[in-house]
Amino acid sequence: MRTYYLKRLKTLVACLLAVSMMANADTVKSPDGTIAVEFRLDDGIPVYNVTYKGRLAVKDSRLGLELKNAENLMDGFVLDGTSTSTFDETWRPVWGEVSQIRNHYNEYVAQLRQPSTDRKMNIRFRVYDDGVGLRYEFPQQKNLVYFTIKEEHTQFAMTGDHTAWWIPGDYDTQEYDYTESRLSEIGAMHDAAVTDNASQTQFSKTGVQTSLQMKTADGLYINIHEAALVDYSCMHLNLDDKAMVFESWLTPDAVGDKGNMQTPCKSPWRTIEVADDARRILASKLTLNLNEPCKLEDTSWIHPVKYMGVWWEMITGKSSWSYTNELPSVKLDSIDYATMKPNGTHGANNANVRRYIDFASEHGFDQLLIEGWNIGWEDWFGHQKDYVFDFVTPYPDFDIKALNDYAHSKGMKLMMHHETSGSTRNYERHMEAAYTLMNKYGYDAVKSGYVGNMLPKGEHHYGQWMNNHYLYAVKEAAKHHIMVNGHEAVRPTGLCRTYPNLVGNESARGTEYQAFGGSKTMHVTVLPFTRLKGGPMDYTPGIFEMDIEKINPNNHSHVNSTIANQLALYCTMYSPIQMAADLPENYEKHMDAFQFIKDVAVDWDDSRYLEAEPGRYVTVARKAKGTGNWFVGCVAGSEEHTSTLSLDFLDKGKKYVATIYADGKDADYKTNPASYTITKGIVTSKTRLTLRAVEGGGYAISIFEVKDDAAVKGLKKIK
Amino acid sequence: MRTYYLKRLKTLVACLLAVSMMANADTVKSPDGTIAVEFRLDDGIPVYNVTYKGRLAVKDSRLGLELKNAENLMDGFVLDGTSTSTFDETWRPVWGEVSQIRNHYNEYVAQLRQPSTDRKMNIRFRVYDDGVGLRYEFPQQKNLVYFTIKEEHTQFAMTGDHTAWWIPGDYDTQEYDYTESRLSEIGAMHDAAVTDNASQTQFSKTGVQTSLQMKTADGLYINIHEAALVDYSCMHLNLDDKAMVFESWLTPDAVGDKGNMQTPCKSPWRTIEVADDARRILASKLTLNLNEPCKLEDTSWIHPVKYMGVWWEMITGKSSWSYTNELPSVKLDSIDYATMKPNGTHGANNANVRRYIDFASEHGFDQLLIEGWNIGWEDWFGHQKDYVFDFVTPYPDFDIKALNDYAHSKGMKLMMHHETSGSTRNYERHMEAAYTLMNKYGYDAVKSGYVGNMLPKGEHHYGQWMNNHYLYAVKEAAKHHIMVNGHEAVRPTGLCRTYPNLVGNESARGTEYQAFGGSKTMHVTVLPFTRLKGGPMDYTPGIFEMDIEKINPNNHSHVNSTIANQLALYCTMYSPIQMAADLPENYEKHMDAFQFIKDVAVDWDDSRYLEAEPGRYVTVARKAKGTGNWFVGCVAGSEEHTSTLSLDFLDKGKKYVATIYADGKDADYKTNPASYTITKGIVTSKTRLTLRAVEGGGYAISIFEVKDDAAVKGLKKIK
Repeated sequence: MRTYYLKRLKTLVACLLAVSMMANADTVKSPDGTIAVEFRLDDGIPVYNVTYKGRLAVKDSRLGLELKNAENLMDGFVLDGTSTSTFDETWRPVWGEVSQIRNHYNEYVAQLRQPSTDRKMNIRFRVYDDGVGLRYEFPQQKNLVYFTIKEEHTQFAMTGDHTAWWIPGDYDTQEYDYTESRLSEIGAMHDAAVTDNASQTQFSKTGVQTSLQMKTADGLYINIHEAALVDYSCMHLNLDDKAMVFESWLTPDAVGDKGNMQTPCKSPWRTIEVADDARRILASKLTLNLNEPCKLEDTSWIHPVKYMGVWWEMITGKSSWSYTNELPSVKLDSIDYATMKPNGTHGANNANVRRYIDFASEHGFDQLLIEGWNIGWEDWFGHQKDYVFDFVTPYPDFDIKALNDYAHSKGMKLMMHHETSGSTRNYERHMEAAYTLMNKYGYDAVKSGYVGNMLPKGEHHYGQWMNNHYLYAVKEAAKHHIMVNGHEAVRPTGLCRTYPNLVGNESARGTEYQAFGGSKTMHVTVLPFTRLKGGPMDYTPGIFEMDIEKINPNNHSHVNSTIANQLALYCTMYSPIQMAADLPENYEKHMDAFQFIKDVAVDWDDSRYLEAEPGRYVTVARKAKGTGNWFVGCVAGSEEHTSTLSLDFLDKGKKYVATIYADGKDADYKTNPASYTITKGIVTSKTRLTLRAVEGGGYAISIFEVKDDAAVKGLKKIK
Repeated sequence: MRTYYLKRLKTLVACLLAVSMMANADTVKSPDGTIAVEFRLDDGIPVYNVTYKGRLAVKDSRLGLELKNAENLMDGFVLDGTSTSTFDETWRPVWGEVSQIRNHYNEYVAQLRQPSTDRKMNIRFRVYDDGVGLRYEFPQQKNLVYFTIKEEHTQFAMTGDHTAWWIPGDYDTQEYDYTESRLSEIGAMHDAAVTDNASQTQFSKTGVQTSLQMKTADGLYINIHEAALVDYSCMHLNLDDKAMVFESWLTPDAVGDKGNMQTPCKSPWRTIEVADDARRILASKLTLNLNEPCKLEDTSWIHPVKYMGVWWEMITGKSSWSYTNELPSVKLDSIDYATMKPNGTHGANNANVRRYIDFASEHGFDQLLIEGWNIGWEDWFGHQKDYVFDFVTPYPDFDIKALNDYAHSKGMKLMMHHETSGSTRNYERHMEAAYTLMNKYGYDAVKSGYVGNMLPKGEHHYGQWMNNHYLYAVKEAAKHHIMVNGHEAVRPTGLCRTYPNLVGNESARGTEYQAFGGSKTMHVTVLPFTRLKGGPMDYTPGIFEMDIEKINPNNHSHVNSTIANQLALYCTMYSPIQMAADLPENYEKHMDAFQFIKDVAVDWDDSRYLEAEPGRYVTVARKAKGTGNWFVGCVAGSEEHTSTLSLDFLDKGKKYVATIYADGKDADYKTNPASYTITKGIVTSKTRLTLRAVEGGGYAISIFEVKDDAAVKGLKKIK
């Protein structure tokens, strides 16, 4: 177990520390006093607010839950007692942006009782220097055993008409492009923000998803999300756009209930990060810290992965997941593929897979994902089909043993793919056999998928039922020493701390949309503020050929990005699994730029957010784990950006070789995305760099510690 | 594989046999001409009727399906073609009422096409001498691939205001007492017919369940049910009580859809049995014949079972399933039963189980069911709790290894119990481990249960989703050589032919209701006409102590039955698994009567229905498999019944020892149920017996072939 505590201090002190009683309200401050939460009962109604350096960030906001067939837990409360404590530990994640994470907060628990029903509910606040977590806790008690949540009414009252980067609230997808607008504009812009998806269910014109990033007129950055979403339904936010108050809006189950609870139990944490510097939002580890420590005894088998895939060629339409075109529909238990005429476009065929293995192994990749390897793809989508895949039977032209053997002989593994099409009972029925097959052939990572509407019918991707399924899949995988990268699953909430074999999720609009019509240039400058709050995203960067017609003449999509921007994503979109998503033949045209993808690390000792503004730019420097090498990435969003960088994060007195991959002067994400410059030279901690990124552009820098001066003889200093 | 074909004849003949074209209608007759079906398109609408010996049994009735988001399959059809054939085979069931079953029918297929949509649908009729099966078939085709059924509109138009024995139509239970009424009275009597159940969902005041038994004013017996319910939702019937037309009413899924179909596919068979003698209804094997032959390669491990159970003491409230009273609710993953105070009433404790094993093994039983052996029973019910049981962890006072070893040492097995509480995902997740545990300890039969509302939420006990689950459980059990006896599952439709390890179901109001307030005396004279149409019922007969207060002073229920009636049930309620449900101490008071339970067989070479009238009486003689011995049972329903029996089913010239267990002269199901007489003597095929059964009473006769005259010396002839 690589996660352990470096330091641990837990003190229970009653009415001490930063807690003070003022006007019938309790206030608890963060360790350095930056953030303060005030809690009180307002005529029996729980109310809190949040201040940042004395400025109100969240105005008085109600807390409570509406129950089904029972008295609500909204009002009529008395305060039975309070407790406060301080916690300070530093822990080591199995993988991460940093090798050590400090978890330091002051805690306040309000022990509420509703005398009319003799029921108890606690509200727990953890106040960090970069934000607040609060949750409901329902102790074991006589009058509250089982209960059904009709709605959770947690308010987040904003102080004004902030700017927000939002996507429409939806029970089934968050694969939307972000919209930047004032809060007051969300309602009018909602419909335009909804684009087609295989499964989607919006609930309100002013409904948005978490994590929601906002910025106030006076420069406060506020982020609302949740942490440790376990055995509960996923929270969205609905805005009262007159009062500028957000309220929680849970995902319903098939009969409209929003939570099925048994005491003792608790809600996930509702998180509010606040900072006057956007970089602090990106650097915050609040979501992870609010999750439970690692529950896996042995994590030695979990490792970062850099991978390629037989995937982009299907996404672009160059080849197909399916094996034959002869079948109007498939019934797995009666079909004999051996008798079917191959369509000639099946991507996951032996020769093609070997070609990818050859290229990927030559360039040092760890794994190769192959989609479309298993039978059923002729008819996998859109019918809520129960027995859609069996997860164990390869197509006739995919020799699972030979291909795994071949990969292993080249020092690689194959990566498994389990598309469920949302048919979760079917997946659970086959899961043990599927994981066992993986063990047999030497796979240790699976990309799972949940495209389309859910089975059982009426359930949503983000409901309690499905959330339990996703975690079940991760736990069962851990028994088989398998890492999971779940696509279309619920957005992550830091559970990868507790189950670090959850190495990735999609749960947002990924690179694939660049082949489906393109994404906004600002997209990758928003995701670190939103989607990445909960955990790593398998964003699948590394596209070099932006003109998809070059891959498939029938696909006229354009990738709204420069090559330099694509390289930078390996730094800005943190993930322990990183794909080089493009085709080998596209990399072969730009092997000089491809070198960065080969060099860049996927696990880190340290990360420094150098510049950040949502929608505009994100610049981060990361130190590769166990080395003295650094990698820097900068992405520019909706407008061009010029960085003035200090490399003062480098060790003083040391010499480094830097290679800068930057947008060319004439680079343009639309018309000239392949224009880049590569500059190699010596840098030190005193180096100052001015680098320009065009809209949708960026730059990437590899910085290798020089251990042998002779090896860099002749290289000049970069100025 | 013990199921094989003795004789098989299949002939495809076009427009031959009993099929004739009359007035634009096709008529197909049964092999002996008793029953005829007429089919025609009436202005594009499929219509059929059924005649019995020239008398109309089902008037012109529409056929068709209403689809969701697609044109209906109700009208606008043309007849593309027809085909007819004859089938005659005799097959041997693995277990059954008879050792050979003849499957003899004339078949007619109407190949319909809807020109406006270019879609095809076939309607297939199989016409037997004792009834009709009809079903919809949807061939693979371009314009009908996936479709969703909004409702099936199969009509059964009655010729008058028949008498019916009915229970309320319900998506979740059929544990109701039957009501005898005219069809026109159903609507008014519906509400009174609904009694409380753990899960129930009625849909219409004139909704009733199948199998529905009716009788016309002129003495025709008509029975409507379904056969081979696979991958479809269970059919109920809704009555238009003005027109006296029943129409199919399917069970909806969580979003209200009634069937999720993928061509090629078919509906279950809709069955109509017709006879002018009620005994022919009971003797009909139409439901079994309409199911597919056995799909299990090896059935050598499947065997009939006579069993006792640690069960009635919990049902009556004498003891408890639960181990402790200290828990307001249970979370299985955090509870430690070892630290809990036992409640002292837990039935499944080592000493009590050994006591039952001692008694049951002494008296020749095969197995002992023990309920409440596994952790979780403190909190198993009524909360749609997800993780309600793990199916593998015994309570601290149940030594699973020692008790199985002890039973085996006495020549018995224990019978497993899997109560799911309707939490089906949880059951499927634990199923493999649960079956593996059974294999480990030597169990080969499981009683499963589905008490309470379903999980996933919104699904019903009788919907397509759950029907798929039940069959999954049976198929997975077969892989482990485990026999399944499913309680609260969908009513059976003859699937035990195809999967003979499905040895029983409850799916009706069983004996347990005699401890919950009692059932009507006619109940057991109706069940053979209704519930047993689809397959055996685990009715759990054999109650000797009718005054439940004697078992539990707090339970004032009375068993509405005489002891002789209870004995007769072992013959009249056919099942390959039969329980002796009462407590050992109650049997010990009547060991002379108990002798019949010890003697009676549970598998048969032959069965002769001697007398039958729904609601009034059922008398059957059955020949024990592989022997010359017979067992006769008669139950009287809502009034007393006197039989004049001829034993002419016995081999001529042979001598038999008969023991007659009959109601005493002063027997009364309410006040004197334990009054019985036992008469032993010699009988032959010429013997005629006059035997009286009181209301709720009956008689049972064991008839053993005499192989050694000396052994019966002194016994007199019975006259």
